Amino acid sequence: MGLGTSEQAAITSGSDFWHTEGVASAGIPPVTVTDGPHGVRMQASGDDMLAGVPATCFPPAVASASTWDPDLLRRMGEALGDECRAQDVAVLLGPGVNLKRSPLGGRNFEYFSEDPILTGVLATAWVRGLQSRGVGASLKHFAVNSQETDRMRISADVDERTLREMYLRAFHKVVTRAQPWTVMCAYNRVNGIYASEHHWLLTQVLRGEWGFEGLVVSDWGAVVDRVAAIAAGLDLTMPGPDAAGDRALVDAVAAGRLDPAALEKSAELVRKLVEKAGERPAGTYDVDAHHALAREIAGRAIVLLKNDGDLLPLAPGEKSVAVLGEFARSPRYQGGGSSQITPTRLDDALTGITAATTARVTFAPGYTVRGEADEALLTEAVATARDADVAIVFVGSVHETEGADRDSIDLPAPQLALIERVAAVNPNTVVVLSNGAVIATRPWDSLVPALVEGWLLGQAGGSALADVLFGRVNPSGRLAETIPVKLADHPSYLDFPGEHGHVRYGEGLHVGYRGFDARGQEVAYPFGFGLSYTTFGYGAARAAATAAGVEVSVPVANTGSRDGREVVQVYVSLPGSKVRRAPRELKAFASVAIGAGDTTEVRLTVEREDLAYWDTRLGRWIVEDGEYLIEVGSSSRDIRASVTVHVAGDPARVPLTTESSVGEWFADPRGAEVLGAAFAAAAGEQSGGLMSAMTANPEMLMMLGSLPLSRMAAFPGSPLNAGDLDKLVEAAN
Amino acid sequence: MGLGTSEQAAITSGSDFWHTEGVASAGIPPVTVTDGPHGVRMQASGDDMLAGVPATCFPPAVASASTWDPDLLRRMGEALGDECRAQDVAVLLGPGVNLKRSPLGGRNFEYFSEDPILTGVLATAWVRGLQSRGVGASLKHFAVNSQETDRMRISADVDERTLREMYLRAFHKVVTRAQPWTVMCAYNRVNGIYASEHHWLLTQVLRGEWGFEGLVVSDWGAVVDRVAAIAAGLDLTMPGPDAAGDRALVDAVAAGRLDPAALEKSAELVRKLVEKAGERPAGTYDVDAHHALAREIAGRAIVLLKNDGDLLPLAPGEKSVAVLGEFARSPRYQGGGSSQITPTRLDDALTGITAATTARVTFAPGYTVRGEADEALLTEAVATARDADVAIVFVGSVHETEGADRDSIDLPAPQLALIERVAAVNPNTVVVLSNGAVIATRPWDSLVPALVEGWLLGQAGGSALADVLFGRVNPSGRLAETIPVKLADHPSYLDFPGEHGHVRYGEGLHVGYRGFDARGQEVAYPFGFGLSYTTFGYGAARAAATAAGVEVSVPVANTGSRDGREVVQVYVSLPGSKVRRAPRELKAFASVAIGAGDTTEVRLTVEREDLAYWDTRLGRWIVEDGEYLIEVGSSSRDIRASVTVHVAGDPARVPLTTESSVGEWFADPRGAEVLGAAFAAAAGEQSGGLMSAMTANPEMLMMLGSLPLSRMAAFPGSPLNAGDLDKLVEAAN
Repeated sequence: MGLGTSEQAAITSGSDFWHTEGVASAGIPPVTVTDGPHGVRMQASGDDMLAGVPATCFPPAVASASTWDPDLLRRMGEALGDECRAQDVAVLLGPGVNLKRSPLGGRNFEYFSEDPILTGVLATAWVRGLQSRGVGASLKHFAVNSQETDRMRISADVDERTLREMYLRAFHKVVTRAQPWTVMCAYNRVNGIYASEHHWLLTQVLRGEWGFEGLVVSDWGAVVDRVAAIAAGLDLTMPGPDAAGDRALVDAVAAGRLDPAALEKSAELVRKLVEKAGERPAGTYDVDAHHALAREIAGRAIVLLKNDGDLLPLAPGEKSVAVLGEFARSPRYQGGGSSQITPTRLDDALTGITAATTARVTFAPGYTVRGEADEALLTEAVATARDADVAIVFVGSVHETEGADRDSIDLPAPQLALIERVAAVNPNTVVVLSNGAVIATRPWDSLVPALVEGWLLGQAGGSALADVLFGRVNPSGRLAETIPVKLADHPSYLDFPGEHGHVRYGEGLHVGYRGFDARGQEVAYPFGFGLSYTTFGYGAARAAATAAGVEVSVPVANTGSRDGREVVQVYVSLPGSKVRRAPRELKAFASVAIGAGDTTEVRLTVEREDLAYWDTRLGRWIVEDGEYLIEVGSSSRDIRASVTVHVAGDPARVPLTTESSVGEWFADPRGAEVLGAAFAAAAGEQSGGLMSAMTANPEMLMMLGSLPLSRMAAFPGSPLNAGDLDKLVEAAN
Repeated sequence: MGLGTSEQAAITSGSDFWHTEGVASAGIPPVTVTDGPHGVRMQASGDDMLAGVPATCFPPAVASASTWDPDLLRRMGEALGDECRAQDVAVLLGPGVNLKRSPLGGRNFEYFSEDPILTGVLATAWVRGLQSRGVGASLKHFAVNSQETDRMRISADVDERTLREMYLRAFHKVVTRAQPWTVMCAYNRVNGIYASEHHWLLTQVLRGEWGFEGLVVSDWGAVVDRVAAIAAGLDLTMPGPDAAGDRALVDAVAAGRLDPAALEKSAELVRKLVEKAGERPAGTYDVDAHHALAREIAGRAIVLLKNDGDLLPLAPGEKSVAVLGEFARSPRYQGGGSSQITPTRLDDALTGITAATTARVTFAPGYTVRGEADEALLTEAVATARDADVAIVFVGSVHETEGADRDSIDLPAPQLALIERVAAVNPNTVVVLSNGAVIATRPWDSLVPALVEGWLLGQAGGSALADVLFGRVNPSGRLAETIPVKLADHPSYLDFPGEHGHVRYGEGLHVGYRGFDARGQEVAYPFGFGLSYTTFGYGAARAAATAAGVEVSVPVANTGSRDGREVVQVYVSLPGSKVRRAPRELKAFASVAIGAGDTTEVRLTVEREDLAYWDTRLGRWIVEDGEYLIEVGSSSRDIRASVTVHVAGDPARVPLTTESSVGEWFADPRGAEVLGAAFAAAAGEQSGGLMSAMTANPEMLMMLGSLPLSRMAAFPGSPLNAGDLDKLVEAAN
């Protein structure tokens, strides 16, 4: 490529916070990378890194994921690409596809779901949309960055099967389907090794197994040791400049401690990225159209959790409406930290509601924006609520930000008091939540007939909430994360956020709904749940195995009187599986518009690779042979149709060795033959000893079943001879 | 010691299944070691290794632990020592002090508890009793052998704090207080390394930290590689002979691959053991007296779980009694496997009940001994029950054995049917359980007024049950393990028994009641629970910290009309602890006899070392400074008195380093001073960059708090200079 070692070192770190290093002599300009992922955050001044120039604040991932609609994510990606072009941004730092392991995760609002397939499908669409505009994505944070506590050092201690099936699965899907330009390594350690120095992650898995062709960029400040990072497969260290690190690289190459090819490869990937970025034209975008898109996505993201007596939607003009809660006027619409956007405009719900109805709308803030108790505000709000036909109470999280996990999922006490006291005076009370991560709804949700989960909805959230409350949008959002009865019920509860540098992923595969289902626990609102203003009926499901997976189809009817959307969900399990599995796992889904009275045949594909589990003995993915149960439902706990289908398995015989147990030998047809013959021969020759013991007492045989062959051979009086074992192994395999 | 290398090699493996190798020329005779721990199992013939010569079958540990009385354990140990003398046994293979991690553990009946302090105190007493007779104990299975599934290979993957505080704690207590002659290494691997080759376990911790002076013997067949085992600190490989292994040792020493001192040390420990064993006189024992002791312990082990309307005790002669269930006639009194004893005699409950009363006693088996359904038997039993004043239904586990875990905690369906149908015809139904590990009692226990947990009670269990049913013994047994509502509630549920060679100890410290309490889960019967035929009242507790720990005293009154025993339990917690802790942990207990109407001042000592947690940063035990909450109760969920006491902490400052976070620097008084000064100096010199960002936006500061100092220094515009960090560290420490 023509760059010397020192130039290679220089361009593998940034020139400042938001630019790559250019090499003018080699025709490599610097390019701009900046924070996302639900807006383009261009730093406005040198001083406050979190203040940006105005950009559309789309709904954060917590909300966009609740649409369960990849098409909307694609359109958001396209719009973001256009805004990047307008700002001369080459790479937008997103999407964030870490799993929501705990409801306390401080950055949950930037992540999609507790499910890897849902996450992977949605993020793939977003990346495709963005990159279709010639702007690169940065798939982050690779990997297992599911908490903020001690995030720069914490070691996520997680077994390989869980890592593969849960925490890497979404990354795998996005890389193999959308080839993001960059992948961003995480701050944390994974099983004791910094992600920025994790050769297995960055090179063996990401490039080797998945075929990633792009560049690995560090999270800002994630690199501890430039030399170790380049050797492991990290390419670009941000921010910069990092003269000391550049020198260390040059020295390491000179001293033979670093393969020059590794540095050259990283520098070449930076050059290629810059080259690719140079191809995108400049552009502008339509602020109004993007605001409208933000509103559309927000409307689709709202989840109707409760609607007793069809209190919602409100009829425009029929009633007087009391709007209560400061958040109706001062919306909570995004979280804090690197994703914080200065919006182009900002809709509040109070204005939206006032515009949506001809009825009298009154307002009382009820509490302060920081959530403090204020008896006068509370009293005023109750009085306001008492006089209205309907009371809408806006409450939510006071603060969520990158850099800190939460320590509770409860609403602040003053907000709880507002709900309780309003509900006591007005039976038609609707609660609207604004929150970036799960808020406990028990037991107060029993006090109100209607509950709307509004998440953080971006700059158009206020209008979108009015759209749903008044029925201009028929809600179709679904929970992408379980709302538990209480925090202590959560699968992650005992092991979050760890201490002294380590966090054990003790629940293993049983993240989110998988854990609740495995333990048969009650939840407040299950994964996949969400109501509509209409109703849907399911017919019989059909399923057919193909080489690519399983084709599922089911007729779904809109049995109500309003047009609406149903999110059809396919959960799969394998009763009698030889490996531990969750009771059901989401494998396919579709958000389908169905007109009132219409019926649609919904077709979904379960991809064969999504049926596979990671076999740690064989070190590869295995689709087990068997009768898979396909459950089609409206949520993970509302299965409407089910069907079984035979899926032919992958060859997966584990070779027998001298360390295989006697039980494993007998479980294998050929092994049983070989070992049985050896035992029979021994029985003919021997008496006494282990052989007789085995036949004299069945419990002895049970105890011996777990003996590895080599250790049985070492027992005095063994029917096996240590010298013969290799022959047995050869015969068995 | 005068033995050559090959003789050293020879005596570090056995001469056969049950004897050490002797060296006649060196005056070293072979000695006998044999299975325990609740009886002396001398193999009767060469063929059936599980058939032994008659010996007293004392209650297995599941029952003896339920006495919560170390004095009874000491007396059992003494009696076993006498039986060993009579059989010329040098070492009895017990006690088993592995924690009951899961109710499914196949060998739970041989282990004491889900709590390490209860386990350690009881096992210490047993070892002292046994060894007072000049017979050696073998503390087993070292370590983390809490399941049978794949037991020869499974790796128990457990973090160090959990290992130290939970799985090693009982071993530590017994070793440091009772110096067992031998410790038996486990079959399994611990964090990937075979226990038999685990240098950290066998040498660093056991000998180095704990000062163990005895010999480490392998579990039978646990050694994979003699050379690696000797090098790690294992001394005696059983069984033998192992000529190939002996040669491998000699070769390894000759080739310089094994330190000759290691082999010499092991051989010397074998020689010392044989020497010590030679000192014990031969002896006899009183079969009747031992049977009586077995009955006494069994009576004290029975746990009265439910006794609505004081149905129990039954008055002798007042009523007609129907005894139902084959187990009343064919008692389940011990588990299968290496601990299986051929008893000197065997009491069944039917005989015991018949002898205890002048009333008419009828019997119907209800089901077969293997638990199969039999409608005719069931019908007969129901008819028998209908005619009686009281029905006593005997049910329990059909089979529990070493070598296999259970796959359910439910009663067999035919036995459930028996309970339901008898309860339907006789309101005075008592259920008596015989089981080696927890059996689910919900929901059927609501059908009967009285429930007696009879565990596996040894050869005198039948009489002991009659003693309790008729009030000759006032029950004082307490649960040493939680009975959950359902198996899926258990802290270990998601991670038991693992697969493909690994089991994750995902619940960490939260074993048993610690996990149920941490999650605030309902249980069927909590840890420490057990009813009496009398009642006890507690006065105010007092607590005083001393150098040795905390002295606790509480007046306890027998407020009923019968003499009885109360098991007073002390649970400790530290609200606001800086480390994760269970809500309460058992730290002291006492079984106290109190006459009807009497009051006793019960004094208990919480040992200071039992207050300590293992600090992984400092690599040592730390007693945290603080106000400890001392809860005194009748069970873990029936706290009767509480008091706080200040305990002065151990010095435990974690030195600040360049990898300590900015937040950690500011949390340390001296660190805050030093770093604050550095920041102030930088603020005077710099403008812009990170320094300004930190002051411009509080969220930025929150995000930066987790930055290690070294990485903050590497940021462009940092207030810190990489070159100055060492000076800061020096100044701070």
